[in-house]
Amino acid sequence: MRAAVLRAPHRVEVLEVPKPVMANPTDILVRVELTAICGTDLHPYEGRLEVEPDIILGHEFLGTVEAVGDAVTQVSVGDRVVSSCVVSCGSCYQCRRHQPGNCAGSRIFGLGLALGDLDGGQAEYVVVPNADLSARIIPDSGASDEDILFAGDIMTTGYEAVARAMRPGDVVAVVGAGPVGLCAAMAATVLGAAQVIVIDKVDTRLKEAESLGAVAVSALEVDSADAVLDLTSWRGADVVIDAVGHESALVSAISLVRAGGVLSIPGVYTEDSVSIPFGELYLKGVTLHMGVAHITEYIDEVLALSAAGKLNPGTIVSHRMGLSAAPDAYRLFEDREATKIVLDPWV
Amino acid sequence: MRAAVLRAPHRVEVLEVPKPVMANPTDILVRVELTAICGTDLHPYEGRLEVEPDIILGHEFLGTVEAVGDAVTQVSVGDRVVSSCVVSCGSCYQCRRHQPGNCAGSRIFGLGLALGDLDGGQAEYVVVPNADLSARIIPDSGASDEDILFAGDIMTTGYEAVARAMRPGDVVAVVGAGPVGLCAAMAATVLGAAQVIVIDKVDTRLKEAESLGAVAVSALEVDSADAVLDLTSWRGADVVIDAVGHESALVSAISLVRAGGVLSIPGVYTEDSVSIPFGELYLKGVTLHMGVAHITEYIDEVLALSAAGKLNPGTIVSHRMGLSAAPDAYRLFEDREATKIVLDPWV
Amino acid sequence: MRAAVLRAPHRVEVLEVPKPVMANPTDILVRVELTAICGTDLHPYEGRLEVEPDIILGHEFLGTVEAVGDAVTQVSVGDRVVSSCVVSCGSCYQCRRHQPGNCAGSRIFGLGLALGDLDGGQAEYVVVPNADLSARIIPDSGASDEDILFAGDIMTTGYEAVARAMRPGDVVAVVGAGPVGLCAAMAATVLGAAQVIVIDKVDTRLKEAESLGAVAVSALEVDSADAVLDLTSWRGADVVIDAVGHESALVSAISLVRAGGVLSIPGVYTEDSVSIPFGELYLKGVTLHMGVAHITEYIDEVLALSAAGKLNPGTIVSHRMGLSAAPDAYRLFEDREATKIVLDPWV
Amino acid sequence: MRAAVLRAPHRVEVLEVPKPVMANPTDILVRVELTAICGTDLHPYEGRLEVEPDIILGHEFLGTVEAVGDAVTQVSVGDRVVSSCVVSCGSCYQCRRHQPGNCAGSRIFGLGLALGDLDGGQAEYVVVPNADLSARIIPDSGASDEDILFAGDIMTTGYEAVARAMRPGDVVAVVGAGPVGLCAAMAATVLGAAQVIVIDKVDTRLKEAESLGAVAVSALEVDSADAVLDLTSWRGADVVIDAVGHESALVSAISLVRAGGVLSIPGVYTEDSVSIPFGELYLKGVTLHMGVAHITEYIDEVLALSAAGKLNPGTIVSHRMGLSAAPDAYRLFEDREATKIVLDPWV
Repeated sequence: MRAAVLRAPHRVEVLEVPKPVMANPTDILVRVELTAICGTDLHPYEGRLEVEPDIILGHEFLGTVEAVGDAVTQVSVGDRVVSSCVVSCGSCYQCRRHQPGNCAGSRIFGLGLALGDLDGGQAEYVVVPNADLSARIIPDSGASDEDILFAGDIMTTGYEAVARAMRPGDVVAVVGAGPVGLCAAMAATVLGAAQVIVIDKVDTRLKEAESLGAVAVSALEVDSADAVLDLTSWRGADVVIDAVGHESALVSAISLVRAGGVLSIPGVYTEDSVSIPFGELYLKGVTLHMGVAHITEYIDEVLALSAAGKLNPGTIVSHRMGLSAAPDAYRLFEDREATKIVLDPWV
Repeated sequence: MRAAVLRAPHRVEVLEVPKPVMANPTDILVRVELTAICGTDLHPYEGRLEVEPDIILGHEFLGTVEAVGDAVTQVSVGDRVVSSCVVSCGSCYQCRRHQPGNCAGSRIFGLGLALGDLDGGQAEYVVVPNADLSARIIPDSGASDEDILFAGDIMTTGYEAVARAMRPGDVVAVVGAGPVGLCAAMAATVLGAAQVIVIDKVDTRLKEAESLGAVAVSALEVDSADAVLDLTSWRGADVVIDAVGHESALVSAISLVRAGGVLSIPGVYTEDSVSIPFGELYLKGVTLHMGVAHITEYIDEVLALSAAGKLNPGTIVSHRMGLSAAPDAYRLFEDREATKIVLDPWV
Repeated sequence: MRAAVLRAPHRVEVLEVPKPVMANPTDILVRVELTAICGTDLHPYEGRLEVEPDIILGHEFLGTVEAVGDAVTQVSVGDRVVSSCVVSCGSCYQCRRHQPGNCAGSRIFGLGLALGDLDGGQAEYVVVPNADLSARIIPDSGASDEDILFAGDIMTTGYEAVARAMRPGDVVAVVGAGPVGLCAAMAATVLGAAQVIVIDKVDTRLKEAESLGAVAVSALEVDSADAVLDLTSWRGADVVIDAVGHESALVSAISLVRAGGVLSIPGVYTEDSVSIPFGELYLKGVTLHMGVAHITEYIDEVLALSAAGKLNPGTIVSHRMGLSAAPDAYRLFEDREATKIVLDPWV
Repeated sequence: MRAAVLRAPHRVEVLEVPKPVMANPTDILVRVELTAICGTDLHPYEGRLEVEPDIILGHEFLGTVEAVGDAVTQVSVGDRVVSSCVVSCGSCYQCRRHQPGNCAGSRIFGLGLALGDLDGGQAEYVVVPNADLSARIIPDSGASDEDILFAGDIMTTGYEAVARAMRPGDVVAVVGAGPVGLCAAMAATVLGAAQVIVIDKVDTRLKEAESLGAVAVSALEVDSADAVLDLTSWRGADVVIDAVGHESALVSAISLVRAGGVLSIPGVYTEDSVSIPFGELYLKGVTLHMGVAHITEYIDEVLALSAAGKLNPGTIVSHRMGLSAAPDAYRLFEDREATKIVLDPWV
């Protein structure tokens, strides 16, 4: 089969590789029909995450089940499924407490040995382990594949960041209008936020946020804390989503949240040390949530709402390309010329 | 001032009565600008609830604050406010546990001595006790008074019935498309239900439910349990709202809920004994919520969402009349010729 | 191997039967070291639940793992495990919502074909399906096997009934001091109840409740509602546990609960119709929880607390017998001469 | 009357001052019968918090109601009450969301103008504003005044820190065995922790922790992270309480918490900037709670449990003195020669 293979940093090639083979009775084999490039893929692509040569990339994908292991009970050959980007065991201490994002043996597709040694989904076929937990049958509805695809990663990540923090009627401020930030803004609306404020510096992203019904604030033009205070009778936002993952974003996010509010952080932090105004956090009495999303805990809600037409993350797709154009697609994405790229493995 | 006075069962008259006077430092005096007739008003009107002669009716109202007691801190003269229909003490055991609907000293406007001896709001003026808790300033927004008015009763009652029971992505079935049922359907949509199903026998009510985006099921034409099973892959609804308050509705509601689902009952029950299929409830593992709504716990969310244009309960108003037409209004409402009637106290 | 076999109603025999064989890659084979007779076993024993002839009885057991299927990852040969009495799939709609007691394919050991066709654990060996979910490794501690055994059923059932309903500092009233009621009383204490009241008619049971630190109320001597009101400044209990499962118990339980309180029902109801004072329930604003326990959701907490010596359900064991005496044990238990009987399969 | 007056930093004098007078209809006047010195009192005493000269110190006190304002409904003359150390309004946005610790107008007794200008309780009499919310009648029980007194501050602060974070069966680690840390350890036990680990460097404090049933870890002798990992099968604590409030404690606390765990911070932070290993927090997926305690939200639970003899914070009292010895008491407390000092205002 053909697959997007990372030969070396900045060098993706579409190669003919062996079709993957199921190894465990809980595996399924999926014929991939749509896959996407995610910001996380840039970590190995740009060499920031060291991986072995020749890994198959990609952790956002959907397709049709071609074979199922003996112990699989929830999906059958012929079912169309979308997979969680993270495979968790379902049985460890954390999984039993409904925290699969903290699974002791969690694995992510297409990110190499250290993250679980799973071939990625930017390929014609992919094996999904622990399928009864990882894979979900796509509900029968009018929703497009592009609206369903992101349930496996960014849509559910943005959704969870909001759902774990907000209460209906809240004011939700989202720092960063990248894919996860836009998904968080969509989720906030669907979950009953009274007002959604999105802060970014890039005009096209702010336009997109506005088209979702959010109030767009350009951090280039105004002080974002002033803007949020102004929009909230000087109270601050009930919930702030840091969808960036950078010290400056965190400091800014802290300035936006009201006393007693919640700061929810889907943005990825890897820094050994970050300096934050902890006295301000304490004085305000802020609650912070962060960490890898618990995809399989929220994916059913996201799929139900996507199937019902209430979540439309497909709107953030800016480029549709064939797998054979994967090298170009990665270049476009790295250069920030594309918000979100989906790939058809059969083109 | 003029007020709608219940002289005897079925006999409402608009009379000149003394303007009410504040008695406690926590009271406010409100100049009423809009008031409504509620299904509960029919209890004294029809004689099912015995009350003293000549009570002033009405517990849904909004207006402008004309005077405030010495101990009032949250509202000022000139503020426009909407009042909770229930006045709770804020300090008893139940209130301190955030259950004001179960307040040991709870009082309802316009329902006579036994329910707390408060003059009602179908009048030019009304005194609101314990105003820091009972009255809320109407948020500055484009929302119409008709969309705000019901936050004090039916909108918040319907909202709470849903909010305490559902999780986003759920299927919510509402039994009974009267005012509270329609408000519950609106709330379910705003709170992220994937699907809302409304069951009634009256065509005009079902039309209204459909216009809110719900799937309307006529209990005259189909078996409602079959219909709900059909719409939910034979699983049943995650949440069922019984907005009727009658043994037959309860039995029907039980048949609609899925295993592990929730039955939430804003409908009022006064029966000494009701026969229900308890074995079925146990086998399904249903959770039941019921009782007088905790208005002051949910009213802020409802007002925020109404001000944001997300909840529009004003759409259920079928008749707009002057206070002087109150006798006719009560007759229309009793004869089920009106879904919801609002009265202007100054006409 | 030897097993307690139900030949016909009221006729248990200990017979030599084939040692069970694992059929699925998620199964484990357990060498049983301790097993118990549960009230539920009396349903087939007394013929109230119709079962096929010659089923092996028993759903409370612990032992050592002798073999594991290929797909089992959490337990290994040689581990000592206790099993949930209910085997759920872990992947259906309800299981994914953490409601395994409502699993679409749930099965119970030793109750015949209709309940899932699983051989029971009153035997030398038993196969546990879906072991990564159903079986838990017994924590290394000083806790006795008798304290651990009931985590698979009655201890966790009583615990959940309390945990889903109460808040620390509450007054908890338990109706019925049978094994589940006593376990609920233990749980209430460990979970921070300020006061636990246990109501029964049998003196020895009330003594046992008292020895757990509860206030014992004899329903033969006083009116239980009066007693509870008296103990709660006329407010009623915050939480009432109906551990009986009978219309009269339910009506009594309703009279004990405070306005805004919770009625949690681990007692089993199978009646087609039960008459209850629904007006009183509505007026009080009671929440009701009921249904088969979600054992695998709570068993880890129960095991942690049992291992820590905080839960001691072994104290309710009244008789210790060998498996060969199973026919006598069933007679004793049916005649209410024993509170709880454990059997050693190797004697 | 006599009161402990702070003339200047490090200079407490017991002076004759005017008996306080109620100013608002929601006030009560309390004859103080027991009061305590709290770590927070050292902020003005040591000059770290600048206050006006001659403030009356003290925010932990109980006594008998001598007079009540016209709008007070919950307490009467002659009632014995304990007061929350924080007075909140009960009606602002945060208070209505049950976050009184974040009240927009919150005031603390005895800490000067900036913190609300309330005379303190280290005096013969004190006025308690907003008494229906701030003051609670002491339940009739055998509990000593010393066990009740701390419900107004440290006991409830420690309790909330645990209650908002833990689940029964958890392992709770407490960093810092000062008064709040010891109260948190007590609370963890009562709320059903399977294991409580207390970390400190001072032997006498560790002894006290041990006497509460906790595992005491001396940070002087072992690495606390190693010790906690060792006690938790290398998993880390489910909940870590930082009862210190210092960058080094925070960094240590982060190292103790398990993946998916909760870090709850009653310790006070005032620093403009703190450097923390945010990558580790993110990777672990930790939730953080912090801020001034919501005393009036938890005080009823604490009082119920204290009255029931389950919480015994009186055990941490090391010195009992008369008010006239307040100057000595402050010196002892500043020199860390006393864990907790209570004062009798009439001696």
